[in-house]
Amino acid sequence: MTTTPSASIKVGIVGATGYTGVELLRLLAQHPHAEVKAVTSRQESGRCVSDMFPSLRGHLKIAFTSPDDARLDECDVVFFATPHGVAMNEARQLLDKGVKVIDLAADFRLQNLDAFRHWYKQDHACPDVLHEAVYGLVELNREQIRHARVVGNPGCYPVTVITGLLPLLEKNLIDTQHIIADCKSGVSGAGRNATQSLLFAEVSDSFKAYGVSGHRHHPEITEKLTAIAGADIGLTFVPHLVPMVRGMFSTIYARIRPEAMDQDFQAVFEERYKDEPFIDVLPAGSLPETRFVRGSNYVRLAVQRPGNGDQLIILVTQDNLVKGAAGQAVQNMNLMFGLDETAGLTQLALIP
Amino acid sequence: MTTTPSASIKVGIVGATGYTGVELLRLLAQHPHAEVKAVTSRQESGRCVSDMFPSLRGHLKIAFTSPDDARLDECDVVFFATPHGVAMNEARQLLDKGVKVIDLAADFRLQNLDAFRHWYKQDHACPDVLHEAVYGLVELNREQIRHARVVGNPGCYPVTVITGLLPLLEKNLIDTQHIIADCKSGVSGAGRNATQSLLFAEVSDSFKAYGVSGHRHHPEITEKLTAIAGADIGLTFVPHLVPMVRGMFSTIYARIRPEAMDQDFQAVFEERYKDEPFIDVLPAGSLPETRFVRGSNYVRLAVQRPGNGDQLIILVTQDNLVKGAAGQAVQNMNLMFGLDETAGLTQLALIP
Amino acid sequence: MTTTPSASIKVGIVGATGYTGVELLRLLAQHPHAEVKAVTSRQESGRCVSDMFPSLRGHLKIAFTSPDDARLDECDVVFFATPHGVAMNEARQLLDKGVKVIDLAADFRLQNLDAFRHWYKQDHACPDVLHEAVYGLVELNREQIRHARVVGNPGCYPVTVITGLLPLLEKNLIDTQHIIADCKSGVSGAGRNATQSLLFAEVSDSFKAYGVSGHRHHPEITEKLTAIAGADIGLTFVPHLVPMVRGMFSTIYARIRPEAMDQDFQAVFEERYKDEPFIDVLPAGSLPETRFVRGSNYVRLAVQRPGNGDQLIILVTQDNLVKGAAGQAVQNMNLMFGLDETAGLTQLALIP
Amino acid sequence: MTTTPSASIKVGIVGATGYTGVELLRLLAQHPHAEVKAVTSRQESGRCVSDMFPSLRGHLKIAFTSPDDARLDECDVVFFATPHGVAMNEARQLLDKGVKVIDLAADFRLQNLDAFRHWYKQDHACPDVLHEAVYGLVELNREQIRHARVVGNPGCYPVTVITGLLPLLEKNLIDTQHIIADCKSGVSGAGRNATQSLLFAEVSDSFKAYGVSGHRHHPEITEKLTAIAGADIGLTFVPHLVPMVRGMFSTIYARIRPEAMDQDFQAVFEERYKDEPFIDVLPAGSLPETRFVRGSNYVRLAVQRPGNGDQLIILVTQDNLVKGAAGQAVQNMNLMFGLDETAGLTQLALIP
Repeated sequence: MTTTPSASIKVGIVGATGYTGVELLRLLAQHPHAEVKAVTSRQESGRCVSDMFPSLRGHLKIAFTSPDDARLDECDVVFFATPHGVAMNEARQLLDKGVKVIDLAADFRLQNLDAFRHWYKQDHACPDVLHEAVYGLVELNREQIRHARVVGNPGCYPVTVITGLLPLLEKNLIDTQHIIADCKSGVSGAGRNATQSLLFAEVSDSFKAYGVSGHRHHPEITEKLTAIAGADIGLTFVPHLVPMVRGMFSTIYARIRPEAMDQDFQAVFEERYKDEPFIDVLPAGSLPETRFVRGSNYVRLAVQRPGNGDQLIILVTQDNLVKGAAGQAVQNMNLMFGLDETAGLTQLALIP
Repeated sequence: MTTTPSASIKVGIVGATGYTGVELLRLLAQHPHAEVKAVTSRQESGRCVSDMFPSLRGHLKIAFTSPDDARLDECDVVFFATPHGVAMNEARQLLDKGVKVIDLAADFRLQNLDAFRHWYKQDHACPDVLHEAVYGLVELNREQIRHARVVGNPGCYPVTVITGLLPLLEKNLIDTQHIIADCKSGVSGAGRNATQSLLFAEVSDSFKAYGVSGHRHHPEITEKLTAIAGADIGLTFVPHLVPMVRGMFSTIYARIRPEAMDQDFQAVFEERYKDEPFIDVLPAGSLPETRFVRGSNYVRLAVQRPGNGDQLIILVTQDNLVKGAAGQAVQNMNLMFGLDETAGLTQLALIP
Repeated sequence: MTTTPSASIKVGIVGATGYTGVELLRLLAQHPHAEVKAVTSRQESGRCVSDMFPSLRGHLKIAFTSPDDARLDECDVVFFATPHGVAMNEARQLLDKGVKVIDLAADFRLQNLDAFRHWYKQDHACPDVLHEAVYGLVELNREQIRHARVVGNPGCYPVTVITGLLPLLEKNLIDTQHIIADCKSGVSGAGRNATQSLLFAEVSDSFKAYGVSGHRHHPEITEKLTAIAGADIGLTFVPHLVPMVRGMFSTIYARIRPEAMDQDFQAVFEERYKDEPFIDVLPAGSLPETRFVRGSNYVRLAVQRPGNGDQLIILVTQDNLVKGAAGQAVQNMNLMFGLDETAGLTQLALIP
Repeated sequence: MTTTPSASIKVGIVGATGYTGVELLRLLAQHPHAEVKAVTSRQESGRCVSDMFPSLRGHLKIAFTSPDDARLDECDVVFFATPHGVAMNEARQLLDKGVKVIDLAADFRLQNLDAFRHWYKQDHACPDVLHEAVYGLVELNREQIRHARVVGNPGCYPVTVITGLLPLLEKNLIDTQHIIADCKSGVSGAGRNATQSLLFAEVSDSFKAYGVSGHRHHPEITEKLTAIAGADIGLTFVPHLVPMVRGMFSTIYARIRPEAMDQDFQAVFEERYKDEPFIDVLPAGSLPETRFVRGSNYVRLAVQRPGNGDQLIILVTQDNLVKGAAGQAVQNMNLMFGLDETAGLTQLALIP
């Protein structure tokens, strides 16, 4: 533990002009034990952050700094809210100065170097750092995260699919060969770059699937599920785009193993997550809605077994920008610095 | 054939104050060979239809009539855009007067009387009429529809699931025991009654599943698929609500039978639907979006087989109010009166 | 001051099943010095509040109580998030027990009894209580609110129009006879009752005006502006409905008086609001957007004077459920109990 | 008249990859007397148009052509759905070949060359062609359009503001110095270019004004109103962005002249527009909604006079892509070629 709660953690953010970045700023500006010391952007250098995001006016008096001028090495922790491939080129240097690193992109998610190369079209720049990096899904790796210097924050889809299957795989209750994850994401998950297919007039009042033939989160999910199950995983993963800003909904279909037909699956989930502050297993028969996690760090999920048959349906909701990105990253930071895990993450969902 | 194309078909509509009703009015007001003669509503009796729906101003000069006063027996065909249970109480009388009946509710969809009673909470009022009724999915029953006096227009979900599986089941290419249909519907599918859960502020910017433990379209789909396959069907069906007005997207997961692994599934679909005017099999690799059918009578679908494995994914889109309701009903009418099947149904989708 | 910050204020809420109610619950559940002791609802009596609003799960362990059983007289303050006409029938009894009252409906907004009768179709039940009641727009009546026993929380539109005109009227800078307020509100402002015209499929992807011939907030705005200006007010007020959940945008057109043509209007607004914690005068040339106040208690506004002419345009944004309702109510409570005015109200807007 | 209705008009479209372009394609693909012969796009050359817009599949079998290869001179008419400044560089050459030109951009809207230079940042390339060009607002210039070789299709905002004021200005009923047009547009009006501020996650669930200090449609509106009124026009024009795809709503505030206080304004509008096929004056007391014109070529408007005072409010709705762009262009084409003015424009609005 490098910092006591009474002192503020000095935070740097690389690349805070996108949605995960501004969400980090929202959470950290209200965090009781953190202080944003540097926010870098080459393009916006010198511009007041709250000029770009007026929602921060009065709460964050800091300007964007050029990466060359930012004293990131004076921070306690640096978050990378950048495109894939940035963090891995800067992590080594920060670690050497004693600065911890949390990457919200994919550089430290996949341990399989071939898979990384295949899906991200580049060689990994620092396999040794990757080797020590911890996959930052708190419910999976809490203890390792406490001692980690580098954390790879999970992708948004993986958070929902892994938390939705974890209790079942740990207890070997389902057929691991025929899992289907039909996932739906709000548009903010696709980022803030100007892209024709993400224009309001393209997305609104429509629904589509994408990445059916292959999506980068597929190998990430599979790698983690395989480790949990200790067995090969056969996963069909279809992401869809929902005309909403925030929110992710994963409908997971798992076949119950013959030996497990007598299980009380509601109890399995409740037992597994009973001490988790941010996993909310809804009462039996519930149907979650993404609005009930909007702006909060919760995963709220429900288990359904229609007709008491062999098909289990797990319905998982989260805010893709909070538990699916910035909130999880702050939760990781809290653990890495010995803080209360929930510090700065107690906002309630905004409904309606 | 009771009417030649040169004369207009005289149409009556019972219950045109909801979304399928006004969609029928939109299509029929522009139909080259139909004329709306009566629109009934007890509550709105005497009110000009275009006063409730100003979109019809200048195109439909007719007032709502009380059901008691409407001369429906002078019509050639009567559409029921009413709650379940209305049409079956009025069909016999109309048929006796030589008037054909197209029901957009569920009264003439299920041949299984027990299933009807179970799901619609009432005994069927006219099993004999039901017996002669034809299920109005044109792609399934075109010839019978031509000669039908009573047509049960299919539910919106069934249209997508059945058209998405028809080519596969007819050729016995998939495991019929483990089919999953993950379906997503726009909000107009839930009707126009004042309902808290359908308020804009409840639905907007959110996503949810519903009816997971049981939905009325499940037995309808199963009954029809069973007849097609000539085998028992094991179907998991999960409907979801999308924050959009119109549109339906069904993601169907089917396991390829070992004997069928060498099939060219794209060709199977193209061949089956090559003469269908309203089923559009998109080119291999396509990803449909609901906006490309908005306001049109098309089903546009695509077949995907990730990694050339044993899991087939069929992506089906339609406008739930057109091909999923009023458009299909007009297509049925066209067939029943010997008209060109596409008459009045050639509007292009409205994008953006 | 009846309560010191170290002890929690005991809060009762009458009618928390609507949008202002659940927003009050969100704010109070996170408030450092308040505790919700009773939430009444006749219909939902016995049901856990977080069962209706799962967003509150884990943060509010209380059930709805029947109004007859709730011990509201043991609270320090009672909020009424009820339809118009409820609070005025219960206020006297609570006051007699030493309980303060904050009404989020209209019972204590208008001092003119005739106007109240005309617009709310009922006689006022307690003119004497009304007489002592303070209009709870903090920026107008901060000192009176500190000492008030009864506060009439302002309507959502009035907050924007009054804060947008206050600096101008106080200094007599505009023509008071020809003010135009073209206001736009998100749909949550219309409440949570099941209403056909508020269904998603009616509201989405459309825009309309309403209440053009007369709206209840018109007399409220006029009464307050008249008092501020010390002169008759001629106001044209047109509310519109925007297909969004939260947010209010008022575009106010005021004619500059000939004597005031040399004024620096930006400076006038900045000076007037420089000590206001929740009024944010944006830099000259800014264009506010409602999303930058979503979920926060801010009014953010800008002043524009195209071509340096005689027409001033004031653009005012707020979240109609926060500063326009529940947030303002909590701000009033803070003042009434000697707390820091911003306690429990420091959440940042949720963007995107 | 160069073409008889029996033969099809040969149409070319320059720049059909945007929203006005695809809307033109939708309308022309269904037009009884027009045939799209060439659609140009340098970037998309060779690609099937219906590959970009699957809504056109089965109805438009044509590929994009490079502008260099397109035989536009073999067309009867060429539409420019291009950025400002393209049409004026190509019009002369087409006219010389006997091809008529309809520009949906601004090249032929403003007769004032200085205003054009000021607002569009370029000198006009062909003032002589501009001189003969007719401003294509049918309700204003029907007879000139019949004989025009070049038509400048009006901007979307001008259509609503001019049709909303035309009857009043022609009869000299309002104060021309203090007109306010508070206008609201759906997002499709901003075009299809990849732009961050138009992303779904930026626009959805928010509302803003823009262009307050100056907008290109301001001089266009003023030039036309001045000509109509024969007097200087003082217009305050504030455009806003609504989170909806299609639709425009203009709230126009006009002061009634003292001499005109006894006018029946409802009758003034009804009389002026009684023979207009696409201007629908709603009954007294009506409140238009944009959804009732969605996808149709109508302007639907209402006149309100609250409290019978001196302030008139005109509420004008249109679909910005139809009557505000492509529909108006087709209406112009119909006139220029002696067709029924409504040919191909009779689609009803799509509701819900």
